[in-house]
Amino acid sequence: MSILIKNVLLDGKRTHILIEDNIISKIGETQRADYEIDGMDKVALPGLINTHTHAAMTLLRGYADDYPLQQWLEEKIWPVEKKLTTEDIYWGVKLACLEMIKTGTTTFNDMYWFEKSAADAVKEMGLRAFLAEAFFDFGQEDVRKESIKRTEEAVKYIRSLGLERIQPALGPHAPYTVSKEGLEWVRDFAERENLLIHFHLAETKKEIDNFIKKTGMRLIEFLDKISFLSRRLIIAHAIWLNDEEVKLLVKRGVKVSHNPVSNMKLASGVFPYKLMKQHDVVVSLGTDGCASNNNLNMFEEMKFASLLQKVHSMDPTALPKDEVFRMATINGAKALGINAGEIKESKLADIILVDLNTPSFAPNHDVISNLVYSIPKVDTVICDGKILMENGKVPDEEEIIKHAERIAKKLVEG
Amino acid sequence: MSILIKNVLLDGKRTHILIEDNIISKIGETQRADYEIDGMDKVALPGLINTHTHAAMTLLRGYADDYPLQQWLEEKIWPVEKKLTTEDIYWGVKLACLEMIKTGTTTFNDMYWFEKSAADAVKEMGLRAFLAEAFFDFGQEDVRKESIKRTEEAVKYIRSLGLERIQPALGPHAPYTVSKEGLEWVRDFAERENLLIHFHLAETKKEIDNFIKKTGMRLIEFLDKISFLSRRLIIAHAIWLNDEEVKLLVKRGVKVSHNPVSNMKLASGVFPYKLMKQHDVVVSLGTDGCASNNNLNMFEEMKFASLLQKVHSMDPTALPKDEVFRMATINGAKALGINAGEIKESKLADIILVDLNTPSFAPNHDVISNLVYSIPKVDTVICDGKILMENGKVPDEEEIIKHAERIAKKLVEG
Repeated sequence: MSILIKNVLLDGKRTHILIEDNIISKIGETQRADYEIDGMDKVALPGLINTHTHAAMTLLRGYADDYPLQQWLEEKIWPVEKKLTTEDIYWGVKLACLEMIKTGTTTFNDMYWFEKSAADAVKEMGLRAFLAEAFFDFGQEDVRKESIKRTEEAVKYIRSLGLERIQPALGPHAPYTVSKEGLEWVRDFAERENLLIHFHLAETKKEIDNFIKKTGMRLIEFLDKISFLSRRLIIAHAIWLNDEEVKLLVKRGVKVSHNPVSNMKLASGVFPYKLMKQHDVVVSLGTDGCASNNNLNMFEEMKFASLLQKVHSMDPTALPKDEVFRMATINGAKALGINAGEIKESKLADIILVDLNTPSFAPNHDVISNLVYSIPKVDTVICDGKILMENGKVPDEEEIIKHAERIAKKLVEG
Repeated sequence: MSILIKNVLLDGKRTHILIEDNIISKIGETQRADYEIDGMDKVALPGLINTHTHAAMTLLRGYADDYPLQQWLEEKIWPVEKKLTTEDIYWGVKLACLEMIKTGTTTFNDMYWFEKSAADAVKEMGLRAFLAEAFFDFGQEDVRKESIKRTEEAVKYIRSLGLERIQPALGPHAPYTVSKEGLEWVRDFAERENLLIHFHLAETKKEIDNFIKKTGMRLIEFLDKISFLSRRLIIAHAIWLNDEEVKLLVKRGVKVSHNPVSNMKLASGVFPYKLMKQHDVVVSLGTDGCASNNNLNMFEEMKFASLLQKVHSMDPTALPKDEVFRMATINGAKALGINAGEIKESKLADIILVDLNTPSFAPNHDVISNLVYSIPKVDTVICDGKILMENGKVPDEEEIIKHAERIAKKLVEG
C-alpha cells in the first residue's frame, strides 16, 4: 500500500511525503497514493526511538514510588514480578505499545520476562521493537542454564514471526546479576547469531564500588578483558564512568542509552553528558520501565534530559534542544542499527505527525523547542509504512486499558 | 446555578459533589441540581494553583532557548517585551488561560505588564487570578513614578471589575531592579490597600553576591530591616538562602513559590527544599513564564519538583508525591489566602476531573502517583462554580490560538 502525506510541515517547509510499502519513497512534488493524509496544521517528524525500557512494567505504574532502591526492589517490585504470567506480559506490552503510539514512539528496545508474549503483542500493535529476554544467573549454573534456555527459545520464536520490524536481542541484566560465565555465553551467542546486547551498566555508584571491592578491578576494565565491549552492545544508564572508560566505550563501538527520568526518580546519579559529548559517544534516550518513570513518554524524557544537564552543570546552554532531539531519533537508530530516525527518501517509513494547533504548541516560533520543552499532541503515527494512529485514535484503546487494569489489579492483590 | 458531579472518585471513594453558586455545598448523598456531570471514570481533584507566572509570555514560548541568562534577557526577551501592546497582552493571557484550563490549573498568580488587559482576558476565560503590574525603578525617580502610576491604575481597574475571583496584587520585580524607595512604597501601599506582594527573590547566586558587594549586607537582612518581609509577601524562586534566612522568612510569614522547571532551564540552581521543609515554610509551586519553561503545565512541574530533589539529594524518598501534590494545591491556596486547594464542603468550587481511562493513567494503583509521575488528561474544569471545560473542550479554542499566533509572529518579526 502507498500513503501520501500532503502539505505537511517538514524541516520548516511545506511538502508532500510519499510512502510505498515500508519505505519513504519520495519527498516533494504531488504524487498519487492509495491513501492520503491531510498534513495541513501538522508537522512531520521521525518516530521517536526509546532505547531502554521494560514495556510490560506499565502494569506496575504507580505501584511503588518514593522508596529507597533496595526496599523498592526487594519488597515491592521483585515479589510482584515473580507472579508474572505470559498473559500478564501480553497485556502489559499491549498497554505499553498503546502509550508509546499515543506519544509518538515507533521503536523500542526492550528487556524483560516472557519476550515471546511481548512479541505477540508488538506484532499486533505494529511497532518496531528489539526484544531481549532478561538473562540472570547470580553465579549459579542451574539458573544460568535456565536463562540460556529461555533466551534461545525467545530468539527462535521471535525470528519465527518473520517480521523485520521485530528483532530478538540479548538481555544480560547487569554485571551484579550475571557472572563472567553468563556474560561469555551471551557474548558468544550474540556473535554467532548476529544479535544486539542490551545491558544495564554503571547505574549506581554502589554497583561500581561493590565490583571493585569484590574483584579489585573496575567494571569496564573487567568487561573489556572478557571482550564483552563491542559494537553489538547498548548499555543503559552509564552514569558512573570516568574519562578513560568513556574513551574505551567509544573505541569498542559501544552505544549508550541515557535514562534521565529513571536516574532522577531512583536517585541513581547524573549522566556525564559533557564527557560523553567530548568523546563523541552515540547517546540515545530511553524511558526505562514504568515502575521507575512512570510513563513511556519520550517528549518528557527529552525535556528532563536537557534540563538535568543545565542545572547540574549550572549552564543554560548545556544539552540544547537540537542535540536532545537527535538523541531521541537518529542516535536511537544508530544504536539499534536501523535505517530510521530521519525523514529522508529511502529511509524506513516511521513517521509521526504532531498537531500544530494545540495550546501548548502555540505559538510556533520553533518546532523543535515546542517538541522538547513544551508538550506536543501526537495526531498520527506511521510505523513500517502502516498507520497505527490517525486523528489521535488507536483501535481497541479501551479494550487494552480494560484488560491491563484487570491484570494489574490481580497482580498486586493476588 | 447548581452543578452535581455524580459518582466521581474522590479520595479513593465514589461519591457525589454538589456545587451551589461558587461553593462546594455538599459531598455525598445524591442531590438534584440544575446541571449534572457524569463522574464515572473520572477522579475529582482540587484545581491546581500556579503561584508564579507571567501569563502573557506564552507569546514567547520557544522564541529563545539555551542562551546564557544575560544574553537571553538582553538580546532576546527584553527587546521583544518593549514592543508589547495591550492587545498583545490580552491575547497572550487568553492563550495562557486556555493552556491552564486544559491542564487543570484554576488559579494563577501573575506578574507582568498591562495587567488591566490581563484582567480583561481572565474575566472572559473564567479563572481565578492575582494580577500584579510589574514594578521597576532601577533607582530612578521618574521610572519609579511611572511604575507607581501603572500600579495604582491596575489596582483600581481590576477592583472596578467587581469580581472576587480576580484580585490585584503588587509586583515589585526583584531586589536588583527596585530600589529601597520603591520597595518602601510597595510595602506601604500593600498595607494601606490590603494587597499581596509578588516578588522575585534569590533566583541566582549572582543576585545575592552582587547585593553583598554593593551594600555589604545580605539581601534578606536588608529586606527585613526595611520591614519588607511580611505575611503579604510571596517570593518566587527562593534558591540562594541559608538556614537563618529561611527561619526569618517563616517568622515573618513569607510564602515561597518554587519554580523547578525554570530554575533548571535557566540553570539558576536547586531549591533548598529540605531546609524549607525543616522550618515548615509554606512552599507552593509555580511554572514561571513560558519563555523559561516552556509551558504552564502544573502536573509536569510537580514531577520536575520531586525528581530534582531526589537526584540532587541522592535520596529517592525526597519530596514524595503527596508532598508535591500539596504544594500544587493546598499550599498554593495558603500562599494566596484563598479558601481553595481542597475538595471539602464550604470550599470554593474550583474542581477538575481527570480521565481515569487513558493509556498513561492505567493501571490506577495510585491516583496521586499517576498525577505526579505520569501524564494525566484533564476532562473537566470548574472554577468559581462555573464550567470552563467539559469533555476536554474549551469554547473558542481555535480562535484564541489563531489570534495568539498572529500576535506572536508580529512581535518577533515586527
